[in-house]
Amino acid sequence: MNISSKTPVTLLGLGDMGTALARAWLAAEHPLTVWNRTPEKTGPLREEGARTAATPAEAVASATGPVVLCLLDDASVGEVLDGTDLNGKDVVNLTTGTPAQARLRARWAEERGARFLDGGIMAVPPMIGRPGTGGYVFYSGDRELFERHRGVLEAPAGAEFVGEDPGHAALHDIALLSAMTGMFAGITHAFALVRPEKNLDRTRFAALLAEWLGAMAGTAHDMAAQLVGGDYTEGVTSNLAMMTAANDAFLATAEEQSVDPRLLVPYMELMSRRVAQGHGDEGLAGTVALLGGE
Amino acid sequence: MNISSKTPVTLLGLGDMGTALARAWLAAEHPLTVWNRTPEKTGPLREEGARTAATPAEAVASATGPVVLCLLDDASVGEVLDGTDLNGKDVVNLTTGTPAQARLRARWAEERGARFLDGGIMAVPPMIGRPGTGGYVFYSGDRELFERHRGVLEAPAGAEFVGEDPGHAALHDIALLSAMTGMFAGITHAFALVRPEKNLDRTRFAALLAEWLGAMAGTAHDMAAQLVGGDYTEGVTSNLAMMTAANDAFLATAEEQSVDPRLLVPYMELMSRRVAQGHGDEGLAGTVALLGGE
Repeated sequence: MNISSKTPVTLLGLGDMGTALARAWLAAEHPLTVWNRTPEKTGPLREEGARTAATPAEAVASATGPVVLCLLDDASVGEVLDGTDLNGKDVVNLTTGTPAQARLRARWAEERGARFLDGGIMAVPPMIGRPGTGGYVFYSGDRELFERHRGVLEAPAGAEFVGEDPGHAALHDIALLSAMTGMFAGITHAFALVRPEKNLDRTRFAALLAEWLGAMAGTAHDMAAQLVGGDYTEGVTSNLAMMTAANDAFLATAEEQSVDPRLLVPYMELMSRRVAQGHGDEGLAGTVALLGGE
Repeated sequence: MNISSKTPVTLLGLGDMGTALARAWLAAEHPLTVWNRTPEKTGPLREEGARTAATPAEAVASATGPVVLCLLDDASVGEVLDGTDLNGKDVVNLTTGTPAQARLRARWAEERGARFLDGGIMAVPPMIGRPGTGGYVFYSGDRELFERHRGVLEAPAGAEFVGEDPGHAALHDIALLSAMTGMFAGITHAFALVRPEKNLDRTRFAALLAEWLGAMAGTAHDMAAQLVGGDYTEGVTSNLAMMTAANDAFLATAEEQSVDPRLLVPYMELMSRRVAQGHGDEGLAGTVALLGGE
């Protein structure tokens, strides 16, 4: 018998992320019930103190704390929960999905009498249960559920509640990861530029690059201020006209260094389009609407 | 008569950047001689203590310290210095150009008996002469010239010497700015994703975004280690296979939010190409060579 006074957790799904979450809750001494489609995954966790359920229905029926879903995708959530009695349950969905999927799933769960919180995990499994590695989880949906189970939710990683719209956790998650993809594209282009150079210290280059990007990431604050205020010239020190004036040097350098510029060209074109519309005095906020088809 | 004991500076070119540099040297009490193609620009600086030269030849002939060039482009450097006697002079070229232009210009200057240092300015004019705003200048070429005039060079902004290849300052400059362009593309996509949302706190979103990008900029260190060591799987926690698996959710979310994904697609394709080559276990370093046409 487990005599922990901590909130019990029920977890469906033991992929790499689910398993990392399970270990974090066990380490924090939360009574844990797990289920996985292929039962082999439950063996090691059972030895570490987890209780196993034979079916999702049994796992959900016995749950007195949050029911956490960490499945392959949203379709799996529907399949796994089909035939379970969700009435009165607190469902926390950490399955990766889109904002629209989270909103539909929230309504689906609420129609079945459950409270619903969606989460978007900003971490890879090795960061789970290890404070200080910088990982955290966005949550959105039922604020009361979030507050009631905050202790459970903060055991594996930091928890950031970003609003009552159940789609906003996934939206924050995907927006930040999308921005990161753009940054990685830029870093890749930069390393490709220095690739032909034998006498260039790549370690120092990386340090200078990381420091520069870290400082320039603050541009997001200026963009938010411009977008909120509606004046896209507010606080601009380097405007679109100045930035596009440098594009020829970027392209010429890429050609000199035998680098395909395809990763940078689409944004250069977007900036140039905004300048051609007569908005060269604006900051980057002016390009945001162009992606929305205006 | 100027009785300053500091090294005199000769500056050709008084655009926004040249004027900001001039003011920084005057503020630091370096005797300053300036020349500009349109002499109107020299008036205010003369009142602030600068000496003016009527021609580039006169400016260069009287120079006993570094001759700094801050002109429109590399072609302007050739035109402005045509007919000047560079023999024995210390030339510091802060004119924006490509690495190849800097290398050719270095040879050109050395053939005329000058020492040559090239610079790439990582700042906008309002950051010049204001320590703490984060601006600095990359220098490469004649190391002895750099060391001798370090005091002059550090007056307007921080100075980073990045090697004796005269093209490496411009290469560092353009590589970092190119990477920043990629990051800005990513940030723009992220803001476009949240644009349809009325109840989303954009100021907090920007703070979360900037913090995330700042943390993830450190990926440049991992990439450098992989590229230097030649093992592109070294230290990888999130590999290309894992990253490309998320691309469908990124694209589906862009579509839900009515955002054109053109800024992200080229890098998604590059990652997928590397995975298709059987390198899904690699980190981002594996994509660098693909831009070089391999």
